[in-house]
Amino acid sequence: MTEKISIEEMTTFCKKKGLVYPSGEIYGGVAGFFDFGPLGVEIKNNIKQHWWKTFVQQRQDIVGLDGSIITHPQVWRASGHVDCFADFVLKCSNIDKCGLEVRADHFIEDALKVSVSGKAADINWSEMNAAQINKIIASNKLKCPQCKSDFKEVENFNLMFQTQIGPKKDGKNVAYLRPETAQLIFTNFKLIHEHARMNLPFGIAQIGKAFRNEISPRDFLFRSREFEQMEIEYFVQPDHINDCPFIEQYLEYNMQVLTSEAQNKKGTHTTMTIQQMLDQKLTSTWHCYWLVQIHQWFVQLGVQAENLRVREHMKSELAHYAGACFDFEYQFPFGWKEIHGSADRTQFDLSQHLKVSGKEMSIYDEETKGKIIPYVAAEPSQGVERALLVFLYDAYEYDKERGNVVLRLHPSLAPIKVGVFPLVNKINEKAKEVYEKIKNNFYAMYDKSGSIGRRYARADEIGIPYCVTLDFESLQDEDCTIRDRNTTKQIRVKIVDLKEILQKLLHGEMAFEKAGKIIPTK
Amino acid sequence: MTEKISIEEMTTFCKKKGLVYPSGEIYGGVAGFFDFGPLGVEIKNNIKQHWWKTFVQQRQDIVGLDGSIITHPQVWRASGHVDCFADFVLKCSNIDKCGLEVRADHFIEDALKVSVSGKAADINWSEMNAAQINKIIASNKLKCPQCKSDFKEVENFNLMFQTQIGPKKDGKNVAYLRPETAQLIFTNFKLIHEHARMNLPFGIAQIGKAFRNEISPRDFLFRSREFEQMEIEYFVQPDHINDCPFIEQYLEYNMQVLTSEAQNKKGTHTTMTIQQMLDQKLTSTWHCYWLVQIHQWFVQLGVQAENLRVREHMKSELAHYAGACFDFEYQFPFGWKEIHGSADRTQFDLSQHLKVSGKEMSIYDEETKGKIIPYVAAEPSQGVERALLVFLYDAYEYDKERGNVVLRLHPSLAPIKVGVFPLVNKINEKAKEVYEKIKNNFYAMYDKSGSIGRRYARADEIGIPYCVTLDFESLQDEDCTIRDRNTTKQIRVKIVDLKEILQKLLHGEMAFEKAGKIIPTK
Repeated sequence: MTEKISIEEMTTFCKKKGLVYPSGEIYGGVAGFFDFGPLGVEIKNNIKQHWWKTFVQQRQDIVGLDGSIITHPQVWRASGHVDCFADFVLKCSNIDKCGLEVRADHFIEDALKVSVSGKAADINWSEMNAAQINKIIASNKLKCPQCKSDFKEVENFNLMFQTQIGPKKDGKNVAYLRPETAQLIFTNFKLIHEHARMNLPFGIAQIGKAFRNEISPRDFLFRSREFEQMEIEYFVQPDHINDCPFIEQYLEYNMQVLTSEAQNKKGTHTTMTIQQMLDQKLTSTWHCYWLVQIHQWFVQLGVQAENLRVREHMKSELAHYAGACFDFEYQFPFGWKEIHGSADRTQFDLSQHLKVSGKEMSIYDEETKGKIIPYVAAEPSQGVERALLVFLYDAYEYDKERGNVVLRLHPSLAPIKVGVFPLVNKINEKAKEVYEKIKNNFYAMYDKSGSIGRRYARADEIGIPYCVTLDFESLQDEDCTIRDRNTTKQIRVKIVDLKEILQKLLHGEMAFEKAGKIIPTK
Repeated sequence: MTEKISIEEMTTFCKKKGLVYPSGEIYGGVAGFFDFGPLGVEIKNNIKQHWWKTFVQQRQDIVGLDGSIITHPQVWRASGHVDCFADFVLKCSNIDKCGLEVRADHFIEDALKVSVSGKAADINWSEMNAAQINKIIASNKLKCPQCKSDFKEVENFNLMFQTQIGPKKDGKNVAYLRPETAQLIFTNFKLIHEHARMNLPFGIAQIGKAFRNEISPRDFLFRSREFEQMEIEYFVQPDHINDCPFIEQYLEYNMQVLTSEAQNKKGTHTTMTIQQMLDQKLTSTWHCYWLVQIHQWFVQLGVQAENLRVREHMKSELAHYAGACFDFEYQFPFGWKEIHGSADRTQFDLSQHLKVSGKEMSIYDEETKGKIIPYVAAEPSQGVERALLVFLYDAYEYDKERGNVVLRLHPSLAPIKVGVFPLVNKINEKAKEVYEKIKNNFYAMYDKSGSIGRRYARADEIGIPYCVTLDFESLQDEDCTIRDRNTTKQIRVKIVDLKEILQKLLHGEMAFEKAGKIIPTK
């Protein structure tokens, strides 16, 4: 593995290749908002579609939902977001000339060089209040990093974007852009349970935008103000959170785990099996089952297991609703950072909506012959953009021999599946014919400009798994060359078989070397 | 064709079948916002994916974009939305006890029973100002329909949802939820042109949410406050808007057209060929080419051409940026209504962003050896939810003989492609085996509850094109029955061939009667 490039280098690469642009760049951009260019939108769609196929369409126990971004504001009162979804903000007292605003925890961490992401948690932010933060600022003599003025007293800032519905101006029509997709699943729970004819255990999945008015967005796509979430709420009978019938087959499955105990002792992660996690009573079998599903999803799509770990939340970190919680963390160049959260949410949310709306939230349980409020044994939840960043980091490699970047994306995620190139201009017609033949089956690109080496390099840089080249022999023998992005190996196949061979290669159903006649390298 | 059901009946059907719910229903809902249930999200995704595949992935001349919902606010000043994107609102003067607010044009249309959607345009709203509206209200003695009080003077209400970015409260951080996706294409035009290596003519496509703070949302999904758009901006050289090289093959293509001339004479639509539209100089060849592409898209996906018409905008209706504009209208039970707009946007938007941002918007033109601002010859633009409503209306039929609704959706749009049923419980295992075999290829549903007739009826109602039934013979002969939703005809096929046969049936590559042994109806 080559050394990982910095987040700034990744930002530059993504812009240069048409993956991600700062939104509204011609007006100077706006922090925390990004536009996805021609290749970025394709990879993002591929991530979402693969996730949806895996967790909704290929399973019988999960159905989908697509809730609105703006919903009834009462939803966010019931969920606790109106009262509690806030960060502390430090404002420079020199309002007229500076006016800098920073997120208190991030600023203090950086200024004092402490880390709260796991092992060196010298400050426990989840238990911190305004008075304590003011005290840290004062005792460490922390000043505005921009103009060196004092900070004002720390303030609480709610992270939900606010707006107003309709023309009334009486304050009764305040609404919020959803800060998470989860609540839409809870508010629709009863309707879906009824119409989709599901019995426990079952899940509801959703992909969609969420908005958080971050005080200081940073690290490119990692912490933005507008992002997409992919989320499942998995409901089980409250008495059966330890009765996952599939757990047997995963007991030997192992992953890197950072336990809360290890964190307490300033330790690091160790490799554990599911059996060991259950023996240590880290959480329920259903929760473990879902940790495995997500781990497998990332690994099957090309993320190296050594770059992934599961971090158990410490008791003090646990949200008010959570029975247990794990983050998946990925080793970025800026440290191990959360890319997925999986909480045991108990019966909190449905109970809360029952309390605030007065509407029935329980369902009839065959076993106990009574009504029960289902229990959320696992909430696998992740940001699409963070997943994109993970896949890009694990795929990106500068190949010294080739002298260009190779983006080793899994074929399912590659933005364009096949490049079709005429060796020289005289072959254009034949190459176009081949492009037309396959374009309805795979997203293909026809490219005739520049040397063939330059075209291979460009294809490598944007992760095209297979390039098909037509040459003078193709005109006579009706065959063509397929080049493998990962190895630069080439095989010769009949054009008439091309579609089927590409299909098998892209789906991993055939080894490259067995798909055609290998062309010896000179 | 059966009579179309009313929009209220469609709303009920969509809720009952898990397609569309009012958002936040447990708190009473919020007008103009909807959540898409398990089947709704699948159909919506199918519409979007089919559109994207057709117009982006299978074409060489269009690339995609996924811009953010919140972008730099200056974008909406340059585009004219901050100043001009408004409707007139009438407010009841009895603020304390009533406070009703209605959209002036809709209210007056309803109250005076005039129509502005084409043929009976007695009032030209695009030329109406506040004084004129106040006069109509006064002269017709129009009162608040709820409490019979007088209205206040009419007000202008900007339809963009406003919010604030970050914790500053100085008014400098006002931002907007985008009211259309188009502007994100213009602001990214130069970046995309450079990175995607495109030459004119070429297009940029985008699918994404847009928000309009409608004063009075109505007609279910037809006029909501949050919706998704699918949009292309197609750029050509300004001197070549009439040089579409593909137009020859479409000259005989015909569709129902309502010309502005016919509207002036209170006439109706007539069937016209593209040749006739060009002869009458309705618009350019590139614009006509795009009208055909969109018309074909709808028709290929099952919309009957008799329910579609193209309405030419009248001169007085044309937006300030438009050279010419056509709406696609669909015959809903509540009248012919816009489902797609296709404007010739000229060079307006790029010029406008050049003016306001001061950034280069022109590109180098090989032909003239100089810089040019590309010309938007066509902007095919439509709402995903309106398309969904169109497809549902054209698919919905109550079949008297069967005694149930049949949703005759095109297989590409059907939310679930295949149902797998054991005839009786003893066959469950075999049926599950078959389900497992095909589930990775098509979104399939395994259903064992209720009589087989009841299961077919349920499958019809949610538009499953093919149902596979396993019976006692299947256990011995390894074959099964496939039932066609549209005809209820049944064929018998080998289980081993099932996947391939279903694939061909779903892609329209094989006639149902030829796919297996026909089972004679009793």
